[in-house]
Amino acid sequence: MKNKIKVVLVQMNSKLGDIKQNFDKIKRQIEKFKKKKPNIIVFPELSLIGFCPDLLNYHPYPDFYKTCCFYMSKICKLSNKDTIVVVGHFFKVRNKFYNVLSCFQSKKLLTRFLKDDFQSNNSKKNINHFYKRYESILIINGYRISFLIGEDIFSREKIYNEKKKKIDLLFLICSFPYSFRKNRVSDNFLKKMSTEMKIRIVYLNSVGGQDELIFEGNSRYFDQVGRSFCLIPYFLEKSCFFTIDRNSISFKEQFSHHRSKISRLYDALVLSTRDYVNKNHFLGIVIGLSGGIDSALSLSIAIDAIGKESVKAIMMPSINTSQESIEDAKKQCELVGTTLEVISIQKIFGQFSCQLKKMFKSLKCVVLENLQARCRAVFLMGISNQNRYLLLSTSNRSELYTGYTTIYGDMSGGFAPLKDIPKTIVFSLSKYRNTINKVIPENIILKKPTSELRKKGFDEDDLPKYSLLDEILFYYIDKKYSIQKILSKIPLKNESILEVIKLFHSNEFKRKQSPIGPILFSNKTTFEKTYPVNHTSFLSSFLK
Amino acid sequence: MKNKIKVVLVQMNSKLGDIKQNFDKIKRQIEKFKKKKPNIIVFPELSLIGFCPDLLNYHPYPDFYKTCCFYMSKICKLSNKDTIVVVGHFFKVRNKFYNVLSCFQSKKLLTRFLKDDFQSNNSKKNINHFYKRYESILIINGYRISFLIGEDIFSREKIYNEKKKKIDLLFLICSFPYSFRKNRVSDNFLKKMSTEMKIRIVYLNSVGGQDELIFEGNSRYFDQVGRSFCLIPYFLEKSCFFTIDRNSISFKEQFSHHRSKISRLYDALVLSTRDYVNKNHFLGIVIGLSGGIDSALSLSIAIDAIGKESVKAIMMPSINTSQESIEDAKKQCELVGTTLEVISIQKIFGQFSCQLKKMFKSLKCVVLENLQARCRAVFLMGISNQNRYLLLSTSNRSELYTGYTTIYGDMSGGFAPLKDIPKTIVFSLSKYRNTINKVIPENIILKKPTSELRKKGFDEDDLPKYSLLDEILFYYIDKKYSIQKILSKIPLKNESILEVIKLFHSNEFKRKQSPIGPILFSNKTTFEKTYPVNHTSFLSSFLK
Repeated sequence: MKNKIKVVLVQMNSKLGDIKQNFDKIKRQIEKFKKKKPNIIVFPELSLIGFCPDLLNYHPYPDFYKTCCFYMSKICKLSNKDTIVVVGHFFKVRNKFYNVLSCFQSKKLLTRFLKDDFQSNNSKKNINHFYKRYESILIINGYRISFLIGEDIFSREKIYNEKKKKIDLLFLICSFPYSFRKNRVSDNFLKKMSTEMKIRIVYLNSVGGQDELIFEGNSRYFDQVGRSFCLIPYFLEKSCFFTIDRNSISFKEQFSHHRSKISRLYDALVLSTRDYVNKNHFLGIVIGLSGGIDSALSLSIAIDAIGKESVKAIMMPSINTSQESIEDAKKQCELVGTTLEVISIQKIFGQFSCQLKKMFKSLKCVVLENLQARCRAVFLMGISNQNRYLLLSTSNRSELYTGYTTIYGDMSGGFAPLKDIPKTIVFSLSKYRNTINKVIPENIILKKPTSELRKKGFDEDDLPKYSLLDEILFYYIDKKYSIQKILSKIPLKNESILEVIKLFHSNEFKRKQSPIGPILFSNKTTFEKTYPVNHTSFLSSFLK
Repeated sequence: MKNKIKVVLVQMNSKLGDIKQNFDKIKRQIEKFKKKKPNIIVFPELSLIGFCPDLLNYHPYPDFYKTCCFYMSKICKLSNKDTIVVVGHFFKVRNKFYNVLSCFQSKKLLTRFLKDDFQSNNSKKNINHFYKRYESILIINGYRISFLIGEDIFSREKIYNEKKKKIDLLFLICSFPYSFRKNRVSDNFLKKMSTEMKIRIVYLNSVGGQDELIFEGNSRYFDQVGRSFCLIPYFLEKSCFFTIDRNSISFKEQFSHHRSKISRLYDALVLSTRDYVNKNHFLGIVIGLSGGIDSALSLSIAIDAIGKESVKAIMMPSINTSQESIEDAKKQCELVGTTLEVISIQKIFGQFSCQLKKMFKSLKCVVLENLQARCRAVFLMGISNQNRYLLLSTSNRSELYTGYTTIYGDMSGGFAPLKDIPKTIVFSLSKYRNTINKVIPENIILKKPTSELRKKGFDEDDLPKYSLLDEILFYYIDKKYSIQKILSKIPLKNESILEVIKLFHSNEFKRKQSPIGPILFSNKTTFEKTYPVNHTSFLSSFLK
């Protein structure tokens, strides 16, 4: 058995569906490392087409699959005798689509590895057919090597099968979305796997934002005695060359992967915003500032994502906007080194309400409040259309869950970075960001939140305190607690809690029309649940 | 064996989640027929909770299930010795939720029937457990009776099991959404089933709109020699008392179920709009007329749904609105007997563009076009908020698929009846509606469609002719044809077809924020597919 194996891992940021661009990236990496003659170069799960949780949506388009096959054959032709190229893509077996890794060398296909649990549309028959056709291990310099893809790494059956193969080195090739609350592939999990199986483990994860998902990277190596090495840091597209020896591993840079949870969340927001802008060919970001914390944090994310030169900040005061808010917004723009454009909506707002007053004797408070928010949206969308700038919506999760946001008003936008961030975490993120350098004025963080759509009043006059509100929402929506159980946990009256739950259900219609945003806090399936609109009636028996 | 069996079928319109209200309806029906002493009274699939395609979204809320159980026990107590009450609901077996029918008599549970294929979360173990516990047939007056629920009626295995039970009468208890293109439960299918099995079949279907679904009713009876009887018509909430004798059936009214496809589609739109308004407690409908056919048809649907007294029609001309359009809209309002409110947006539109011009030297055409549509939306939403009226969005499927609609402009609204109606069918529906009585002026149907957001120009200057456009969209989206295949079918150049496909993918971001509307034309899963935003890149190889 030879002693060394040279590996290149590519923590790649694929763009879903852009097969041509992904191919170009793969090609560049292969060429970049050609001279170093690695034994193997590995790309993440579905790297050629981009990871999509709902692959079945694509394969029916025959042209999409045709393009995928065309570029796979190009990758095959790129491979030489020195290096095995491993690329993830999807693959048709007997009219079903599978998530596979293909291994090429010397312009030939060596073998393929299959993800088993994919969309649970795998018939045993097809899988057996697949396994008969392809070798189940690769042997490089005497090392017996195998691959597991995505969720398969959690399957006892799959792990057991790997054990039987008596492998030395196992690659875990994944595209796991980042989640603030749950670390899907923890160090402990990988350490346990490597020591129990007495093998080396290379964990390669995708990186990058793709609509509501964000992949965090953080690719790692675990040796057979449980030592771990961070190969490529969080949230960076980067490749890494390293050499595995009998009992050691050598590589150029090592990174710490001990980062605070809140700093990773902030980085996730930045990368997901940047990728949304770039992958969708926007030329910049436009954002409306209110002087409040949500828009302040959004501005800071936007600037960290694409630079202040491409971010346009606008404040549109009405008669209800306080001087304090204008000052705070201006101060933030000074801190981050950008200019704040100020356009008053007062006149146009006045005309809208005047016209409406001709139709109705007196206008409801909610009409006047929403009018202001919508006048602002019309301006912002005008700028967005004119410049091909992405309008960021600044609504946060607490607002969307309670409907404390105006549809076609402040909810408007192509992307809502804070969509899944509870208000209490908006505060934590702002404080965290200020620890790097001060970008959000202290006063914005300290003052009581207010929508300033009417003369007086704060958010917490209409809603419970945000700390309690977020707790109720968390228990009810994320934890699925019964109302009785929530009552036992929260020092509030029955009615206040029911009021929040009622708000949650009766504002489903707004969420149905809300912009895309990264799902980082909620379980994705929780978030995507669709309820019937105005689904409060089942609460009636509790509301008595 | 006795000769007669008296049956009550309730083609019920349940409201999803409103267990209390559904219970009240069930109770009223039981009481209504008490004196007639039917042997059995049957309610549709999931009638107590309302049909939901995604039941798994509900059961995690412990309070929801608790309420369901509470009212099931109330229904049990309502049953007397004369009549078996059969109600659909969901039911927990070993921590999994199932779609079941419960049969009560004399305040006791007789048995339950289970839907097998539900959400495919049925473990065989649970099902066996279930079958051991409950009788698999009911016997009434010597008749052996069984039940199949929903999709189970298409299962060969289930049908085979029913055969083994040697039943005389089979109830098919369903909640199948209506679809324009596909009749899921055809007469032929039911006739074949009844003659092959030599049994009587009672098909009971739910009725009513529920967000994007609409159930059509059309409950029918098939005797063992294949004669069919329509018991309750399409799109009506109604109950029906009938007597089955050895070789005959007797009931009061018979209905024809031979209706044109287009008339059923129109009725589906009307009922789904009416139910959305009523089930969500709106007090009326507000709608912006443009003088074009989409808003004209929408107005006619709105008035047929809830009556002209509760519908407010508004026209908001700008400098680009022709006198012809204003006349056409006025004429329609005369025809339907309502008044048209006219508010000019010209001044406000001028102010918005003036402000924006201060920021940019010259405004792009698209900015000015969208501005007008958004000014209108601000007014309409003001009226909606003031009166608690539902704003109808008038965008049709062809517009949504090509992005030929303004987000936060004419796309705005709580409900979009035409969301899934191709433009060519918008014309057919309008012509059909006029055959009942004239409600849409001829000129609106005959003139060339135009958005009137700029000085001159028609829709078909920007897009292919609607007849071709709808064909391309149908082949690409619904039929999943390859581009090559579409080319062979459509007399257009490669580029024009690719342009349409590109528009489809690049406007995904608009559809992600589009209002709810009834899915009547597309396959529901087709419609709900989510693509990555601006997913056009895979076409790049074809665009060369």
